[in-house]
Amino acid sequence: MATRLTARYRVRAETGAIEQRARDIAVEQSIEMPVSAVRNAFVLSDVVGEVTRIVEGDSGWFEVDIGLAVSTIEADGGQLLNMLYGNTSLHDDVALVDFEAPPEWLRRFAGPNKGLEGLRKMSGARGRALTCSALKPQGLSADALAEIAFEFARGGVDFIKDDHGLANQSFSPFESRVRACARQMRRAAESSGRLTHYVPSLFGHFGQMQRQIEIAREESLSAVMVAPMIAGASTFQALSDAHPDLAFFAHPTLAGAARISPVALARLFRLLGADAAIFPNYGGRFGYSPDECRRLAAALREPWGDKRATAPTPAGGMSLSRVPEILHFYGPDAILLVGGALLAAPLDALAAETAAFARIVANPDLGVGVD
Amino acid sequence: MATRLTARYRVRAETGAIEQRARDIAVEQSIEMPVSAVRNAFVLSDVVGEVTRIVEGDSGWFEVDIGLAVSTIEADGGQLLNMLYGNTSLHDDVALVDFEAPPEWLRRFAGPNKGLEGLRKMSGARGRALTCSALKPQGLSADALAEIAFEFARGGVDFIKDDHGLANQSFSPFESRVRACARQMRRAAESSGRLTHYVPSLFGHFGQMQRQIEIAREESLSAVMVAPMIAGASTFQALSDAHPDLAFFAHPTLAGAARISPVALARLFRLLGADAAIFPNYGGRFGYSPDECRRLAAALREPWGDKRATAPTPAGGMSLSRVPEILHFYGPDAILLVGGALLAAPLDALAAETAAFARIVANPDLGVGVD
Repeated sequence: MATRLTARYRVRAETGAIEQRARDIAVEQSIEMPVSAVRNAFVLSDVVGEVTRIVEGDSGWFEVDIGLAVSTIEADGGQLLNMLYGNTSLHDDVALVDFEAPPEWLRRFAGPNKGLEGLRKMSGARGRALTCSALKPQGLSADALAEIAFEFARGGVDFIKDDHGLANQSFSPFESRVRACARQMRRAAESSGRLTHYVPSLFGHFGQMQRQIEIAREESLSAVMVAPMIAGASTFQALSDAHPDLAFFAHPTLAGAARISPVALARLFRLLGADAAIFPNYGGRFGYSPDECRRLAAALREPWGDKRATAPTPAGGMSLSRVPEILHFYGPDAILLVGGALLAAPLDALAAETAAFARIVANPDLGVGVD
Repeated sequence: MATRLTARYRVRAETGAIEQRARDIAVEQSIEMPVSAVRNAFVLSDVVGEVTRIVEGDSGWFEVDIGLAVSTIEADGGQLLNMLYGNTSLHDDVALVDFEAPPEWLRRFAGPNKGLEGLRKMSGARGRALTCSALKPQGLSADALAEIAFEFARGGVDFIKDDHGLANQSFSPFESRVRACARQMRRAAESSGRLTHYVPSLFGHFGQMQRQIEIAREESLSAVMVAPMIAGASTFQALSDAHPDLAFFAHPTLAGAARISPVALARLFRLLGADAAIFPNYGGRFGYSPDECRRLAAALREPWGDKRATAPTPAGGMSLSRVPEILHFYGPDAILLVGGALLAAPLDALAAETAAFARIVANPDLGVGVD
């Protein structure tokens, strides 16, 4: 019998039509041709997708589980996404909710290199959540961005990630930006004795990203950021596998969360190697609900075969005044990402503002406005 | 003044709230931080996105045009997608409808290598639409698939594409499949005197795809298929640019057409180098409307700077009886892709069935059922 993963979908259909619709999806996501035209016994028994469960939900939506043979995927991230939600993403009556896979097959994926605990070690933080800020805006020169990064580092944040929009623009080409920011990290560490990790955002294809990682390594950086849905899931996976000593931040841009559930995405990113997974926090400028965020964080941290935990990294329009509440919500095993809200401070107040952020995270009960 | 492209979105909002919502999207898709916190004059004038047009549509939806500085994109396909619809794809009240860009910037992208006319030359077809079939199902061995390909070729189809689900599975690894199918193409050409082009589907990341193209070249193949939304837009673009003598078929899997309009996708694929763009035809098993298909085909074929035309390749659950109607709809400058419907025939009738398909396309007025 074929080893299968279970893909869970939300499907809109009339009550009388759901069984046929579910079977159609099972075929679309496997052999993609009329089952009646298949004459090969192995294909019929071990390759065609199988509907294993249909549960009626509210107002015309159903939850549908489909067993997909893992032999159609092997262990390639892009192919996993292709089989989970490739052609079906073109249908407006189907969303991918989640997937579950047998442990022996999961072992073929490396998962996070360092995981949450590894990131904690890198930052030296104990018993508290980790902190991260975001380097922006686009349009500034490499040196201007590096100056901002210096102030963030002086403020004592654990990580500074590039805005996901920073690529290789002429106003701040990747190489000059990375070298300038890394230099400022070392400069800040000289006085503080503590290294903030700068996390550059990679762009382009696998070959280009390999070269970008070389540059990051030349500057002794230990973490990089990739947007798996832009770069391609296989690219992300191959990079993480090729660099087991580096930490990977996954950015959700283009993830189209209205069609692929936050939980499914979280699981996918963890499987392919995300040490930290950035996602839009509830109550910010994105539409995730607290319940979605809770389930997403669980998918990143709960025991899952041999996979390290991925650090939930809530982000997206958070203010300092919300930090205690957010810490309470996620607990200490998370990275808090505050970007724009810190940058509202003038450059000469940025380090102090960042320090306030770091202090609230270290001592959530002190509240806000210590500065 | 900044050179800008125009991104067009459908946005759901209350009438009183649309202007603010549009401004928020313009910021999200550019600097992604509060504009009030930006102190750099260049960023404010030349980088922040600008709302240029808001038109009220029906039932709470608006059409919103936003000018995005092309300097934030340079000429990278992944970054183009990131800026057009990256974070905004996470919002369920926004869909990407289309984009328009200044001709001098478009010239930085190579577009199709061969285009529709090049594909026509490859196939030797004149004054008629081109024909394509699809190799499936997953689960068959390389040799079994190659046998099917042989029958398709005997039937006289112009192109045979891999099912997009075929990757590197153990039951038909890429290399053996490609070599076996290419061999059968040569064998069929020996008796017919006419070469059918086998179009293998590439998988994995850029480096892996480069190796797969080497194998295809060793077998003298002239076309390959890539799924840009799985592989990554930058990967697709770089491959097409690196192999100007090859034709690229773009497959829409994972394109989530409910959130990115078929027209926007068509334009993107053409820009990045699709010689043929496969899409779900109206009336098949996908949800595109005739009107969407008409606009999609126009986006692929209409004059667009220096870009060659991309061959519209309607597909998805088409039967032979619909071929005349579909030919009438798209005209001769298209590739008709019929897969599953042909495969319903037993192997020993497949060549005849395929020949019937080719004959109807060559002489649409003869109608169906000549065999």
